[in-house]
Amino acid sequence: MDQLQQLNLSCPLPLGNHSRIQLAHGGGGRLTQQLIRTLFLPEFQNEWLEPLHDGARLPVSGATLAFTTDSYVVSPIIFPGGDIGRLAVNGTVNDLAMCGAHPLYLSAALIIEEGLLIETLQRVARSMREAADEAGISLVTGDTKVVDRGKGDQLFITTSGVGLIEPGVTIDPRRAAPGDRILVSGPIGRHGIAVLSVRDGLAFESPIESDTAPLGGLVEAMLAASKEIHVLRDPTRGGVASALNEIAGSAHVGMRIHEAAIPIDEAVQGACELLGLDPLYVANEGRLVAVVPPEDADRVLAAMREHPAGREAAAIGEVTADHPGLVVLRSRAGGDRVIDLLSGEQLPRIC
Amino acid sequence: MDQLQQLNLSCPLPLGNHSRIQLAHGGGGRLTQQLIRTLFLPEFQNEWLEPLHDGARLPVSGATLAFTTDSYVVSPIIFPGGDIGRLAVNGTVNDLAMCGAHPLYLSAALIIEEGLLIETLQRVARSMREAADEAGISLVTGDTKVVDRGKGDQLFITTSGVGLIEPGVTIDPRRAAPGDRILVSGPIGRHGIAVLSVRDGLAFESPIESDTAPLGGLVEAMLAASKEIHVLRDPTRGGVASALNEIAGSAHVGMRIHEAAIPIDEAVQGACELLGLDPLYVANEGRLVAVVPPEDADRVLAAMREHPAGREAAAIGEVTADHPGLVVLRSRAGGDRVIDLLSGEQLPRIC
Repeated sequence: MDQLQQLNLSCPLPLGNHSRIQLAHGGGGRLTQQLIRTLFLPEFQNEWLEPLHDGARLPVSGATLAFTTDSYVVSPIIFPGGDIGRLAVNGTVNDLAMCGAHPLYLSAALIIEEGLLIETLQRVARSMREAADEAGISLVTGDTKVVDRGKGDQLFITTSGVGLIEPGVTIDPRRAAPGDRILVSGPIGRHGIAVLSVRDGLAFESPIESDTAPLGGLVEAMLAASKEIHVLRDPTRGGVASALNEIAGSAHVGMRIHEAAIPIDEAVQGACELLGLDPLYVANEGRLVAVVPPEDADRVLAAMREHPAGREAAAIGEVTADHPGLVVLRSRAGGDRVIDLLSGEQLPRIC
Repeated sequence: MDQLQQLNLSCPLPLGNHSRIQLAHGGGGRLTQQLIRTLFLPEFQNEWLEPLHDGARLPVSGATLAFTTDSYVVSPIIFPGGDIGRLAVNGTVNDLAMCGAHPLYLSAALIIEEGLLIETLQRVARSMREAADEAGISLVTGDTKVVDRGKGDQLFITTSGVGLIEPGVTIDPRRAAPGDRILVSGPIGRHGIAVLSVRDGLAFESPIESDTAPLGGLVEAMLAASKEIHVLRDPTRGGVASALNEIAGSAHVGMRIHEAAIPIDEAVQGACELLGLDPLYVANEGRLVAVVPPEDADRVLAAMREHPAGREAAAIGEVTADHPGLVVLRSRAGGDRVIDLLSGEQLPRIC
């Protein structure tokens, strides 16, 4: 119990009317969606804004661009398997990939807390460069702001990315259709558990490293197998459960996934059991979920398994006409339960 | 003196080797440049990165795009004449305009401190929408993160923008050439003084409002008068002095400006005298500096004065072959003094 308190785990909050922002508004679950739907969408209505996709598809002089942005506020900023710099580059590269775009250009805006060690900043800058090189994207513009001590938390990084979508590729969460197969590119939950493992001195017996990795190459291999991939999504905060719920909601379809088919490392499974976390809700930073027409699914899955980032890919379920908007898990024992969006936040500041 | 302390004014810091980030590293002066040049540029070398321009010029399928990003950490987030939302939209719209680009698409990433009043967030979202409508740019993608109380400061916003540069327009700080005239679009220093006026309860006799405004329309009017504009720059943090120093440094030219020609509102002048600030270093958010070949300067200046955002535009000086890299002010009394980059920060958290 002490250990749980140390971890700053917060209970899922009930829905309701808040007059002030809660941590759960940033958790990627129901309150985040409510905030976006009630506060931002009424202001910003335009034909390109699709709030629950990972980026926007935009016409620019005859071509189709993808444009995406994300702020990274992970705590701590250095964790097993990566740091905030690598995360910020990979995260935006992956959001471009989830639009089916070839990554081109990256921007980075840093908000630094006064007092940050310059050598820490150097390490993060190096990580960003390495991640950008690995993903084949050029950092072309940036900004640096400094806030007074106690008004930030070491370092926040916001990256934005521009990519080019090939003609004929239309990745869109609304395209998920009954009969489609649901694929996942590898074992889930590693990033969240890796970050958690270094908070407040918690240590697991076997170290769990973040899965942070660029997914552009994997997506290219998948698109080479079939341009008819309907949806791609990287299940970051809120995990696979939230990603599937968002897709089911956008496309007004149901989803059924099979517990026995979902790849999870033993160490992650053990840590989740110890901490009372459901791995379906734990963040990933180097995994994707794909929704693929049934006739192409085996070909796409085979292509994923041939790519280093998808070696442990698996088919975990299918899209249904039944129960639109709901994701249902068939347990190992054969029972069904609804995998809902969390109202609150399982793990704050995870990305 | 008490008043000065209340304002958290900080002395310009001497240059030197710091092991930790200082507020002055974010001031837009010499330490900011040093940080960029020694820490970021060695990592990120590519043909598009031009760190001291307001955005990057990028080839994308036959067109030329501008891409820019900025984080806004202004304190307080609501100030006379605007708020952080309006600032964040106008600032990025203006950075696109300073590349000579027609603004197309905007992203916004919010880092919210737990406990922020939701009605405050609503006000900011509305301001963002109004500013986006005014500038003719579409907000197409975004992100929302929440950090725990005491790990942020109400609200930080990072906006990124994509715009289209017409063929034949090449705005580039390296193009400033001896003989060019230096124009400014209106009275300087209002934004900085407006923000300062609401810090810690300081109040001036006559209220000074921020000049925050979109400059895209003004730039279009200027480019219609001459496509041969060499440089555009919006003199935000660090003010006109820092903007001119950056241009002089990029183009390896000198600059001479004339104190008597620089437009400053009386109220701003009075506030600066009271506070011991030099208005040349105070931030603007709705002004631009232009460097224009002498044969086109009168035509461009006339076009500026016909536009609402440039009614009080003035020619304030010229580019020289003498003293490359240095900006020299000829005072009303006829004396010359070098207007250097500040080492430190005159006003922290101004944008």
